[in-house]
Amino acid sequence: MRIRILAVSVALTGVNIAWGAMNEPIKPISAAKVTNPALVELGKKLFFDPRLSKSGFISCNSCHNLSMGGTDNLKTSIGHKWNEGPINAPTVLNASMNIAQFWDGRAKDLQAQAGGPIDNPGEMGSTHGLAVEVLQSIPAYVADFKKSFGTDRIGIEQVTKAIAAFEETLVTPNSRFDKWLAGDQKALSANEQAGYKLFKDSGCVACHNGPAAGGSSYQKMGVVAPYQTSNPAEGRFAVTGKDADRFNFKVPTLRNVEMTYPYFHDGAANTLSEAVDTMGRLQLGKKFTGDENAKIVAFLKTLTGEQPNFKLPMLPPSSDMTPKPQPFAQK
Amino acid sequence: MRIRILAVSVALTGVNIAWGAMNEPIKPISAAKVTNPALVELGKKLFFDPRLSKSGFISCNSCHNLSMGGTDNLKTSIGHKWNEGPINAPTVLNASMNIAQFWDGRAKDLQAQAGGPIDNPGEMGSTHGLAVEVLQSIPAYVADFKKSFGTDRIGIEQVTKAIAAFEETLVTPNSRFDKWLAGDQKALSANEQAGYKLFKDSGCVACHNGPAAGGSSYQKMGVVAPYQTSNPAEGRFAVTGKDADRFNFKVPTLRNVEMTYPYFHDGAANTLSEAVDTMGRLQLGKKFTGDENAKIVAFLKTLTGEQPNFKLPMLPPSSDMTPKPQPFAQK
Repeated sequence: MRIRILAVSVALTGVNIAWGAMNEPIKPISAAKVTNPALVELGKKLFFDPRLSKSGFISCNSCHNLSMGGTDNLKTSIGHKWNEGPINAPTVLNASMNIAQFWDGRAKDLQAQAGGPIDNPGEMGSTHGLAVEVLQSIPAYVADFKKSFGTDRIGIEQVTKAIAAFEETLVTPNSRFDKWLAGDQKALSANEQAGYKLFKDSGCVACHNGPAAGGSSYQKMGVVAPYQTSNPAEGRFAVTGKDADRFNFKVPTLRNVEMTYPYFHDGAANTLSEAVDTMGRLQLGKKFTGDENAKIVAFLKTLTGEQPNFKLPMLPPSSDMTPKPQPFAQK
Repeated sequence: MRIRILAVSVALTGVNIAWGAMNEPIKPISAAKVTNPALVELGKKLFFDPRLSKSGFISCNSCHNLSMGGTDNLKTSIGHKWNEGPINAPTVLNASMNIAQFWDGRAKDLQAQAGGPIDNPGEMGSTHGLAVEVLQSIPAYVADFKKSFGTDRIGIEQVTKAIAAFEETLVTPNSRFDKWLAGDQKALSANEQAGYKLFKDSGCVACHNGPAAGGSSYQKMGVVAPYQTSNPAEGRFAVTGKDADRFNFKVPTLRNVEMTYPYFHDGAANTLSEAVDTMGRLQLGKKFTGDENAKIVAFLKTLTGEQPNFKLPMLPPSSDMTPKPQPFAQK
């Protein structure tokens, strides 16, 4: 009787989760629902447009490369004039599921995040005013913004809103793990299932849970033993100023983690095996054997979902009035 | 009777050129014929893969951006560690039609060109050996090369062959001008047709002819009067050592010229209007009026053809054995 009621409830809410999956700490990822395709297309162009940077060379996609898991696969990123970035670039894939954006959560959502790199002197090196002036000088962009926002005057809040709308579509459903959650027992090998069981039994799921297998809380890096790093980032403390938040970082998503190397806020772990070992020792007080480590790594690789699937966007040409890129200007 | 014979001849050779187009100095562009799709797909991945650079940040697409007319739209390019490049990056679109590659023609074809930037310290900053080692460490690439070349050992000549095979597909047919050539009188406005007539009558077609409207010869920059520039490039002289070749450069294609700003080997002309004015004065001894200049510019904008039309390629992840990118290494 209980089961029958539950089945009705599931049917009513339209949630497509198999019986077993409802009790799992990692939840399936749903495909993105695009409600405003014109806005998403505009955001996609902006995401790929290096004219949002002072040099005309760096776009959002430079450090959140959608051909490479939404990251740059560098320890820390390269910015304007080859500036060495302070922290590892988090993936933009499934970032809409994060509790907040950046490792320290200083941006409340994707829109708030999108404005940050544009006017960061060490990242895209532009200003919001210059970025808007560039877009305003390009007739095809003016038409796009008019279509989405009904105005002839572009504002930075519209730029970041469009980029965020595109980024919200960057979810990666239908990983092998999701297929297994949905009831396909053959989607994971026995070894991978053993890895998932170890992942749960060891306590990894305390932080890496939910649809993104992470992203939903801040946690101290180095619970059982201190994390040794030369990276000066202090995590959540930089936002709250509270001593208790020192070295608390947003738990990164493990979705597509096979593609988002190197790992941790300082990018110090080059391989999944190394990352699993460090997490076990420092967060859980547990030294995984080689066999356990390999099983967990095998499970983690089942979290690679469907990658972005769209045509390379074509960018409208600048006009004679467009401010010129200044890659080598002294100031 | 003569006309009837000609019509038969055209039908027999299968050439799809309208009557009028046969006598025009600019010829239509044909769509690419892909004979080896697996090789083209491999080349596409390599073209977008920044792991061919030492930093892991710069790919072929960084300076020949296929979202932006196959160029970086910079005066001169940005290379490894933000090196200021010596010359304007030519478009990769329709580059297969060039007599040779680079402004001075020092590479005989696309394959010879593709190896150049990879191991140029001021461009991608890698070596052919390191680039191959990186690819050899990535199982999915090894499988791709095996499929295309039948060998387990990747070589740089295979890398450049695959990139060239992809680049050969980057042609841009069906511009409005091509439609007009094919007989669609309405494809060009009266103003644009007048611009084309001026372009022909003024002598521009002496160099800008053929399917690419350029790319088929070396010509002196500054025939009637010297070209003033601080750029030290000496053109074809650097290859032949002949005094007569000093300041001879490959004539650039005018296809998609609306998207390939800034212009000339030194990138000194920011607008089409400026470029047309300079060309008229220095190459033809002719000062175009404002109206003439505007008409020629209007014609030039009809040369924008179908841009690359494919899905953003997904790159296979590195393995634990892959050499790490070294963006900030001292040497």
